Amino acid sequence: MLKIALAQLNVHPGDPRRNVQSMERCISQAKEQHCHIIVFPELSIPGYLIGDIWDQPDYIRECVHFGERIRALSDRITIFFGNVACDETRLNPDGRQRKYNALFVAQNGQFIGPERSPYPYYIKTLMPNYREFSDTRYFTSLLQVSQERHLFPEDLISPITLTFSGGQTLRVGPLICEDSWDDNYPFKPMQYLHDNYPLDVFINISNSPFTLGKTQRRHRLFGKSIGQFNVPALYVNCTGIQNNGKNIYTFDGASGAYGKDGSLHYECPLFHEELAILDFDETSHTFVSPQKQNPQEEEVADICHSLQYGIRSFMENAGLSKVVLGVSGGIDSAVNAALYASILPKENILLVNMPSVYNSSMTKDLAQQLADHIGCYYTVIPVQDSLELTRKQFREAPLLQNGEEKGHLALTSFIEENIQARDRSSRILAAAAAAFGGVFTCNANKAESSVGYATLYGDHAGFLAATADLWKHQVYALARYLNDVVFQREVVPQGSIDIVPSAELSASQDITKGQGDPIVYPYHDYLFRAMVERWQRVTPETILTWYAEGTLEKQIGCSVNVRDVFPTAKAFIDDLERWWRLLSGFAVAKRIQSPPVLSISRRSFGYDLREAQLKPYYTTRYEELKQTLLNQ
Amino acid sequence: MLKIALAQLNVHPGDPRRNVQSMERCISQAKEQHCHIIVFPELSIPGYLIGDIWDQPDYIRECVHFGERIRALSDRITIFFGNVACDETRLNPDGRQRKYNALFVAQNGQFIGPERSPYPYYIKTLMPNYREFSDTRYFTSLLQVSQERHLFPEDLISPITLTFSGGQTLRVGPLICEDSWDDNYPFKPMQYLHDNYPLDVFINISNSPFTLGKTQRRHRLFGKSIGQFNVPALYVNCTGIQNNGKNIYTFDGASGAYGKDGSLHYECPLFHEELAILDFDETSHTFVSPQKQNPQEEEVADICHSLQYGIRSFMENAGLSKVVLGVSGGIDSAVNAALYASILPKENILLVNMPSVYNSSMTKDLAQQLADHIGCYYTVIPVQDSLELTRKQFREAPLLQNGEEKGHLALTSFIEENIQARDRSSRILAAAAAAFGGVFTCNANKAESSVGYATLYGDHAGFLAATADLWKHQVYALARYLNDVVFQREVVPQGSIDIVPSAELSASQDITKGQGDPIVYPYHDYLFRAMVERWQRVTPETILTWYAEGTLEKQIGCSVNVRDVFPTAKAFIDDLERWWRLLSGFAVAKRIQSPPVLSISRRSFGYDLREAQLKPYYTTRYEELKQTLLNQ
Repeated sequence: MLKIALAQLNVHPGDPRRNVQSMERCISQAKEQHCHIIVFPELSIPGYLIGDIWDQPDYIRECVHFGERIRALSDRITIFFGNVACDETRLNPDGRQRKYNALFVAQNGQFIGPERSPYPYYIKTLMPNYREFSDTRYFTSLLQVSQERHLFPEDLISPITLTFSGGQTLRVGPLICEDSWDDNYPFKPMQYLHDNYPLDVFINISNSPFTLGKTQRRHRLFGKSIGQFNVPALYVNCTGIQNNGKNIYTFDGASGAYGKDGSLHYECPLFHEELAILDFDETSHTFVSPQKQNPQEEEVADICHSLQYGIRSFMENAGLSKVVLGVSGGIDSAVNAALYASILPKENILLVNMPSVYNSSMTKDLAQQLADHIGCYYTVIPVQDSLELTRKQFREAPLLQNGEEKGHLALTSFIEENIQARDRSSRILAAAAAAFGGVFTCNANKAESSVGYATLYGDHAGFLAATADLWKHQVYALARYLNDVVFQREVVPQGSIDIVPSAELSASQDITKGQGDPIVYPYHDYLFRAMVERWQRVTPETILTWYAEGTLEKQIGCSVNVRDVFPTAKAFIDDLERWWRLLSGFAVAKRIQSPPVLSISRRSFGYDLREAQLKPYYTTRYEELKQTLLNQ
Repeated sequence: MLKIALAQLNVHPGDPRRNVQSMERCISQAKEQHCHIIVFPELSIPGYLIGDIWDQPDYIRECVHFGERIRALSDRITIFFGNVACDETRLNPDGRQRKYNALFVAQNGQFIGPERSPYPYYIKTLMPNYREFSDTRYFTSLLQVSQERHLFPEDLISPITLTFSGGQTLRVGPLICEDSWDDNYPFKPMQYLHDNYPLDVFINISNSPFTLGKTQRRHRLFGKSIGQFNVPALYVNCTGIQNNGKNIYTFDGASGAYGKDGSLHYECPLFHEELAILDFDETSHTFVSPQKQNPQEEEVADICHSLQYGIRSFMENAGLSKVVLGVSGGIDSAVNAALYASILPKENILLVNMPSVYNSSMTKDLAQQLADHIGCYYTVIPVQDSLELTRKQFREAPLLQNGEEKGHLALTSFIEENIQARDRSSRILAAAAAAFGGVFTCNANKAESSVGYATLYGDHAGFLAATADLWKHQVYALARYLNDVVFQREVVPQGSIDIVPSAELSASQDITKGQGDPIVYPYHDYLFRAMVERWQRVTPETILTWYAEGTLEKQIGCSVNVRDVFPTAKAFIDDLERWWRLLSGFAVAKRIQSPPVLSISRRSFGYDLREAQLKPYYTTRYEELKQTLLNQ
């Protein structure tokens, strides 16, 4: 029997000193428990998403040095950990240091590499270069190494064989993260290891962010591979948060042990550190005890847990404890306030209502209600006087050219809408946050972000956009979940859930008359999602094709009938072009300057969905189909 | 003799229709001139920097379709062009379409692939994955193809052989961009082609952005390779601008023909489209005529031309013709105003001075002078009243908690500094720009950006940061160049060049007393440059090592003596840590929300220098060295 400690660690990217301290603590606990093996996540020393810090030789040297310190602790325990390995023998093609994302195994003070490898560590074979990942930017893969040496990868990949003082032996198939998700890759590390060597266990170390639905998907896929190979597996992932500027990812952990039939034997809790100790019978290849699985929860629960964990961790890392939220009485700001209230003491929250003449007493009352429900600080600072001042200043300041007066700048109603929005965030909230000793939030949702239905330096501003990766229907679901499950009382006012969404920025947006946003969420949520989140991204060409075929609702997954929303093809096309123009045009310019987003979806704006500021484009096929439909 | 047309085209990324129209125009001109060959740049149909539009199958299909249209025009001319090629036979590892960055050669209505290749096009071999490039995210390289097919790349790469109606033949070594810069790559396409086949000419199609000093560097390196192989070469690059959100790149073109000794025979103008027609003697492998080279200019001239071209193109593409600039009387806003004035009619420019009580009459006069020199619109809108209003509102608005009054928010002097900065940009400039029918600019420089010495939603805001990739000393050089060479009169007021740089945001920043910025530009410009732009990026560890060795000035290239600026090691270390804390800490948070930068350096913040929001880190070696120095 072998005792294996599975260290689901909170990895702090960019802070190797802190990570190594945590690792040392885990190692000494595992030694006390007489564990034979302890396994840490991928890149557990440097962290994973650290941007171009990978180009700092000082940082790499520091991490390598810390790896040596961990090696020195392997006197009574075998330690699996992820670290960067630096190849001193040559540079990268671009002249930078050559680095590997490596799995190190230390036993009796020595590193033990794969049987046939010339390297004393296992090099990650498959490199994700999609979504938020840019592995090839930083690391050389095993495949590149083999190509350079004029070898085939099969020459380099092989098991790591361990012998223990009790006489047990263990032949481990080493894997790093992506190496197990090899479905479309031409070279399949798991398959190759299984086909060529008898194995006792696969050990996969990962550094894999949470994505909605991913945990279940991974269990299913990983389990399927394992069952097919009939080899048990350990999967060790980290917790914590990491970011690449625009996107902040939570790491759920969900580390676990899989039996050789592919069933999930043990699962660590989500979003919590754990040092789990498992008994493994190396002769029968069976995990014996303990056994545990997390309950499966509905989507909105996963969303809520990820957001709460993400906000809490982000604020902790940045040394922040207080927030200010602008609250309008609408759903987005109410959900954000309730989210922060589920994390922070109520004394650390200040809600600010900033009405103009266009705000109804209905929404002003809802804002006040929200604050009362939370029990936090609340204040009202109107924007009307500031708007008047700006009007007056613009009226009185002459435009001069070479000393001659040449009229004035005239403010239109549309300009005044944006003046109000910017006044709220850039003047009032920013100053209030500084005076309160905290930061102010951006309460955007993903439908608004998609088409830039927000004012830059106005409601688009803030230290963090916690709900900007949620579609409007997910925001509503979260509102209900917060009330029903988290607080078990009405915190988000029912009135905010019931009213029609509106910006209330002009006389034509009178919420008491039901005049709301131009976005028809039950349709546009799903239209924008198809354009943004589909793996093979959709443009108006495909949308119009589906519309013509009558399959649009099914394809994008919306429950309204599009022909009820748009009585004619012309109305449909006008709407499609209106939003495409924004989504692929001006909204991109706004997103370039938007706050970081807590990312939960399979495609989140930022480093995950990368965008250039370009003119909106319509394909030739689109133009032809449009003419056909309009001529019918 | 063969007539070769070299089409240095302005490639519009994301607009294949427009690109193909330009290509058709060039082809018909070349046919009129009886050219045998016409060569277009890399990815001349889709463009290069288009972000994740590469994930839209509709877009890819459109580009492939346009490629067919170009093929159909090859009846009396051989056409070399770059396009995306889509492999329908399999998906990428990540499930997306598999695509190649390809060189197509069309003759008599047929595509002609390399002699030994199974593909009817040449696939880019070397993939840049550094700086702003992410080739592997989008394209499969020839090396990957060969590895999957269990071939070595040598099996796939071979020349393209052409026969012309006059009986001439031409054996071309095909290359795409990076394929010629193979210094550190293990596989070297040029070398391989040369070693294995007799060649008449290399043809390199490129889509390569301008970087300061790059043109000269390329000529030198490319020329060296060619001379060594004794094969002449054509290099065809595009003009125009492309961006990836945060970074806007100009493309200088600088296409040309190199003789077999490596000498530059012909060079297209920088930043201008040209259809150059060259006579090539295919028997002696010699370019006959015409002959032309651009004069070599000093660095500041290159900076100025790139910025002017970038601003003009960016505004044209976005449909913008008018700008508003906040002008303080200082050097940065004055240089920006002069830059825009060198591009736009003076009626399209509005300068706004927005003084508070802290602004001296000296700088207010300089702002006015600047407007007079340009002859543009000018107005003065003070921020004092708005600050007073905010003070009053904050004083009068009680903080409530469950209906009870709990004091007020207090504004400190530091908070008021930032209120002024945000008031200028987010209230006044944003509204003024909208009323003027244009946009407002961000006038930051790279030293400020590095350490976030700017206010978010304040002077950090704007539609474009044209000078944010210039160090302060480059801003000064540009000021002098604009006056001396571009305008040949004083446009940037001499007073703005002479005064000490200052934010003038509080009583302690009194410019009339010489109280300026905390940044000592003659040192910090170079310190920050080492941390930001070095290929192997430097951290405080290396800086302190150089300081201890006495080589710091030489290593970072500054002309002040560091020991004159900081009398003690402690003073030096305090300063180093102050700026490192900001550069790698809060400044990152600000850059996430900053405007796009016109990128000219070898490392520009944004997609070029990618950053995560992390805690500043000091390595163990740094801490040790610091203790040693402090104990001395």
